[in-house]
Amino acid sequence: MIRLAVVGTNWITAQFVDAALSTGLFELTAVYSRQLSRAEVFAEPYQASLYFDSLTALGECEQVDLVYIASPNAFHCAQAVALMQQGKHVIAEKPLGANALEVEHAYQTAKDCNVVLFEAFLTHHRPNFKQLEKHLSQLGALRKANFSYCQYSSRYQKYLDGENPNTFNPAFANGSVMDIGYYCVASAVALFGEPKAIQASAYLLDSGVDGHGSAILSYEGFDVNIAHSKVCDSYLASDIQGEEACLVISHPLSLCEKVELKQRVGEDLDISYPQASNPMVEEAQALAACIDINTMREEWVQRSIRTAKVLDEIRRQTGVVYASDKT
Amino acid sequence: MIRLAVVGTNWITAQFVDAALSTGLFELTAVYSRQLSRAEVFAEPYQASLYFDSLTALGECEQVDLVYIASPNAFHCAQAVALMQQGKHVIAEKPLGANALEVEHAYQTAKDCNVVLFEAFLTHHRPNFKQLEKHLSQLGALRKANFSYCQYSSRYQKYLDGENPNTFNPAFANGSVMDIGYYCVASAVALFGEPKAIQASAYLLDSGVDGHGSAILSYEGFDVNIAHSKVCDSYLASDIQGEEACLVISHPLSLCEKVELKQRVGEDLDISYPQASNPMVEEAQALAACIDINTMREEWVQRSIRTAKVLDEIRRQTGVVYASDKT
Repeated sequence: MIRLAVVGTNWITAQFVDAALSTGLFELTAVYSRQLSRAEVFAEPYQASLYFDSLTALGECEQVDLVYIASPNAFHCAQAVALMQQGKHVIAEKPLGANALEVEHAYQTAKDCNVVLFEAFLTHHRPNFKQLEKHLSQLGALRKANFSYCQYSSRYQKYLDGENPNTFNPAFANGSVMDIGYYCVASAVALFGEPKAIQASAYLLDSGVDGHGSAILSYEGFDVNIAHSKVCDSYLASDIQGEEACLVISHPLSLCEKVELKQRVGEDLDISYPQASNPMVEEAQALAACIDINTMREEWVQRSIRTAKVLDEIRRQTGVVYASDKT
Repeated sequence: MIRLAVVGTNWITAQFVDAALSTGLFELTAVYSRQLSRAEVFAEPYQASLYFDSLTALGECEQVDLVYIASPNAFHCAQAVALMQQGKHVIAEKPLGANALEVEHAYQTAKDCNVVLFEAFLTHHRPNFKQLEKHLSQLGALRKANFSYCQYSSRYQKYLDGENPNTFNPAFANGSVMDIGYYCVASAVALFGEPKAIQASAYLLDSGVDGHGSAILSYEGFDVNIAHSKVCDSYLASDIQGEEACLVISHPLSLCEKVELKQRVGEDLDISYPQASNPMVEEAQALAACIDINTMREEWVQRSIRTAKVLDEIRRQTGVVYASDKT
């Protein structure tokens, strides 16, 4: 049984804890929050008995093997590094760091400390994403992919009302491409590796973060078109087109709930598998397998670092700058 | 009754003639082909009695008011100019010219000769495209559009087999963005005008034309993402996203068969009108109205010229060069 602690007490933390516990491989032992009372409230339904408002104390706790970090993006790397240096395994929400230097530093720390660091990019662990990887070879020469994820944020009205919510605050390394666009970029990197060239455009809010944006990732003979937004909704599917067939991924791309293979010659095939209703179950299982043998999967480490590099370049071209980029 | 002649005898010419005749406003009087026998065969079911293998002779024919030009792209402009100088109205298939200089020259000739020149971009004349224009104001601040048209060409296998078909031959000013991508680019220009910036990528075949490509057209606060291909298929819808609502256009974009307004707050509305089963009927009606008053619609002239400029810039960035660009 892997003894889990969590940093952060919002809905995504609850979703991860539910997913982890449902596998039967984890138990929740500790909860960290800046307010101890919030930690207690979160812990109660899970019968977790340890609450912390000091990250150092959490790192010293001998009843914790693994920490799930769902704090704002800007804190992921420093918190992960500190906890790993105290011997904890870490799963951090995507993006693992505010830039590629942070991400590389975090993985190096994991290796130095002989612990597992795992970026919580749930899409990569879904059975239907694996179906995409498996069926790519049936597409013939790859020519084009359209990866779209545009979803109006419930916090946008607060931003417009001048409330400066975290979601649109560059101090937290937030914004559209780092949050929702991440799914498109990381999916491309997971499937196709590092692009040869990147062209990006974005609409910057007055706060300095991107409200939405677009990018073309160019590979040998094919392009991936990325459309991401936190200020408007899209209902479009995503797809991957080859000369012989096309894979269509139902909206939203992040969940890969349905994937179809449409062949130029031959019938259309629904190649979807049943998936867990909580989309973080499969990543929790993948994480448990890594911790079991105390080994990171190098392909996931590389996907994580390469994704961070692509995000850096998109932000460089579009002028989205975080404090951590300047140091 | 407008007395129509046609240059070209392929399926698209027949589709236009059928559309024109169905309006009751046109009659087919003459057919041009490089081979007189092909002209005769084409003319027979329409009971057109005049056949030409000389464009000059066609231009001199007093029983012709209007010529529809569906020759290869590289010839549209020169043929249109020659016929207009002989006093004929002209409708030329899209793209009207191989580059913007040609297109501007053609419209100037029309003005100088006091005739109508009409680019056959059928999409702009469909009732459901007008629905898009009409409902744009309900979207709130425009943020993003995805315009996709990817369709495997029946001629691509011939190209791969070394047969050098017109479709993939730069000598005819062909290729993906000039042909199928045109619908995406011209739709964007028709709805949003000239973009502030353009970023383009393409996959060039050995012949020198683009087999497929992608582009981001940047406007004030929003992007249009364009995906076009003649070497792979896509089934994705297109869309236009604002902060308050989204318009979804069924595949293929060129036909606008179904348009839906999806509101963030409120219900989804199918705002499609019934449309002619022959998609060229509405453009034939629009053309007849122009000829009736012998006046070009300046907004369509400007759309045509601006579209040519965007296509020039996309080709400049992607390295697709035609003979006509060098002169």
